[in-house]
Amino acid sequence: MARIEAVDFFYLAMPDVLDIGDGSQDLLLVRLQAGAHVGWGECEASPLVSIASLVCPMSHSACKPVRDSVLGQTLETADDIRRIGDSVRESSLDLLQTDHTLSGIDIAMWDLLGKRLDVPVYRLIGEGSNHPKTPYASVLFGDTPAGTYAKGQAAVDAGYAAVKFGWGPYGRGSVAADRDHVQAAREAIGPERALMIDTGTVWREDLAAAAQRLPALREFGVTWLEEPFVSGALESYRALAAQSGAVKLAGGEGSHNVHMARQMIDHAGLGFIQIDAGRIGGITPARDVACYARARGVTYVNHTFTSHLALAASLVPFADFETGAICEYPVEPKSLAVEATLDHLERDINGQVRLPERPGLGIRPDLLACERYLVDVEIVVAGRPLYRTPALRGA
Amino acid sequence: MARIEAVDFFYLAMPDVLDIGDGSQDLLLVRLQAGAHVGWGECEASPLVSIASLVCPMSHSACKPVRDSVLGQTLETADDIRRIGDSVRESSLDLLQTDHTLSGIDIAMWDLLGKRLDVPVYRLIGEGSNHPKTPYASVLFGDTPAGTYAKGQAAVDAGYAAVKFGWGPYGRGSVAADRDHVQAAREAIGPERALMIDTGTVWREDLAAAAQRLPALREFGVTWLEEPFVSGALESYRALAAQSGAVKLAGGEGSHNVHMARQMIDHAGLGFIQIDAGRIGGITPARDVACYARARGVTYVNHTFTSHLALAASLVPFADFETGAICEYPVEPKSLAVEATLDHLERDINGQVRLPERPGLGIRPDLLACERYLVDVEIVVAGRPLYRTPALRGA
Repeated sequence: MARIEAVDFFYLAMPDVLDIGDGSQDLLLVRLQAGAHVGWGECEASPLVSIASLVCPMSHSACKPVRDSVLGQTLETADDIRRIGDSVRESSLDLLQTDHTLSGIDIAMWDLLGKRLDVPVYRLIGEGSNHPKTPYASVLFGDTPAGTYAKGQAAVDAGYAAVKFGWGPYGRGSVAADRDHVQAAREAIGPERALMIDTGTVWREDLAAAAQRLPALREFGVTWLEEPFVSGALESYRALAAQSGAVKLAGGEGSHNVHMARQMIDHAGLGFIQIDAGRIGGITPARDVACYARARGVTYVNHTFTSHLALAASLVPFADFETGAICEYPVEPKSLAVEATLDHLERDINGQVRLPERPGLGIRPDLLACERYLVDVEIVVAGRPLYRTPALRGA
Repeated sequence: MARIEAVDFFYLAMPDVLDIGDGSQDLLLVRLQAGAHVGWGECEASPLVSIASLVCPMSHSACKPVRDSVLGQTLETADDIRRIGDSVRESSLDLLQTDHTLSGIDIAMWDLLGKRLDVPVYRLIGEGSNHPKTPYASVLFGDTPAGTYAKGQAAVDAGYAAVKFGWGPYGRGSVAADRDHVQAAREAIGPERALMIDTGTVWREDLAAAAQRLPALREFGVTWLEEPFVSGALESYRALAAQSGAVKLAGGEGSHNVHMARQMIDHAGLGFIQIDAGRIGGITPARDVACYARARGVTYVNHTFTSHLALAASLVPFADFETGAICEYPVEPKSLAVEATLDHLERDINGQVRLPERPGLGIRPDLLACERYLVDVEIVVAGRPLYRTPALRGA
């Protein structure tokens, strides 16, 4: 019987983390050991806080450290993964960080299970098929329209059929300035390629501010407007969707459980639901959302801005979907996100990506490279060391 | 001009934290300093994780440590509090723990502002009135019906007009065993007093499991069934509400922002929305929810299970509500929650509680007592100490 014997978290970061909307500047690598096998996963955002939630002292029966619900558990089937996830959510109910922390553990459990069964993870999910996705280049807006134009040209030169521009100055200046950025983006990528705009919740729930931008988005044929509002601002989303016409709304990356994503699907008028397997609690709940969305005519898309381990995990939930086959694909990640893995999901001659055929997620971390980015952490509570960065190699 | 010069977090805990649903076993005390004044607040659940989110290194522009959006900010008006809260939510958008961490800071900001203006906080909110609330005794179920009966009798002996039983074995055994507990509770408190049942999300989203308990709840005249499902399981809530008859549903304590609470109000068929100011981001968003609920005919009730500092903060959002004037009032808190403050919200001769007339929240921490429960924490990242428990006295 395979029991989970170790759960280790490794905080990796760029030497200099910049104050820009680039989520590839740090990552939390998760290593799980059960019997002869090792699984790897990744949690999105704020590694230190997720480490704290892994090891924190219990507050009460529904606020336990995440590790307590994982260590010692049997891991032999997909049902075990779901059971362990349910147990984590129940035992750490009042610990808000839990879903982000569970995400990397769930991903590592799938990786480990695939290796144990000697099959790629996608074979264990749904129809077990592996349909290629058309990646869209996901880039940040330039500081100026000229900068945006240059980034669009670079994406075209790199062969992408679709490009998304996000964050940066968009939504923070005038409506006219925003139009200039969208125009520059469209001119750079030409009339045929799909163009998406990501506003990173800049208008919170201000319907009017978002609606003012719609004419320019329609004028330049934008496929979707992403996150005009914070996750959960359902009324603002729904009201904007009612007047956005051909420009569809996209959102949902802030969902940290299945229920939040369902509400976005049911009540926000979305054309696209975007789920990050590194936030929603892993591949298991992300798959639930993918099926829920498909049944309701909302297109499921991954949200991914870090390594190709995270990218692979985010593709698994809709690997067997033939239609709506686009995926987010970060094209200007920091060196950490590139070097953290030995394997990468390269585009094929058709410009598409698909999951590897290797067992598990098929993406091996590059431990030597990871060591160069490893951030040493020590947490001591009441004189007792609760966490010290473990050895990444030769453990 | 008063600027926030210091934000300090203090982790307090009982020497032995038990594996029971008693949230009074630890707390995170927040101290804010601006000019000549000091404000105190409290965050619910998992102190270590909230400390980590206060001081963690930045991951990217929307994932900054909470402290960065607070230190140095002007704090002179209620608008400043809202502005700082908005800034925290925006700058720490991708840090899941943020709302819990902000909660204690928002509470401390209100306490400080009241002291600065030399008025009780309730005067700064809504109509500025201070209507007394009828407290219901909030206790855990006994391990057996006899234990539940004894707890009910104790609440009656202590003079409470309403009693809520929660957690423990309820919902984890048979329908008949659960009925025995409810019967014991009703028999202990007599036919006149209000009886409420809190199931602590035990059925997750399993409608049938919850519905099976309805006949007994109706039989024994239960006022509300609390948290049959996890926060956000709107469909299960709505379906149960449609068949619960005179037994109303209560829930919402898991809401960590205004949007989640609104969705519970709009889509869950609740009779009562329960908000913890120590989780939802503080008094400011809790007040928004209180007004939203009142406009829609849903009764607002505080959720509180820790100290009387937290209790006072949780009463402020609906202090000016005349109707529906009940409040949760923990009656078997651990010594920490009692001793942590010098002042307490004692019941008056009518058995009611109201906010103090002292400036701020009017609840002074007992620093000597707090020191006895202080848990020493040290967090070191890349050789740099990011957090060391500060001095509680004489700082």
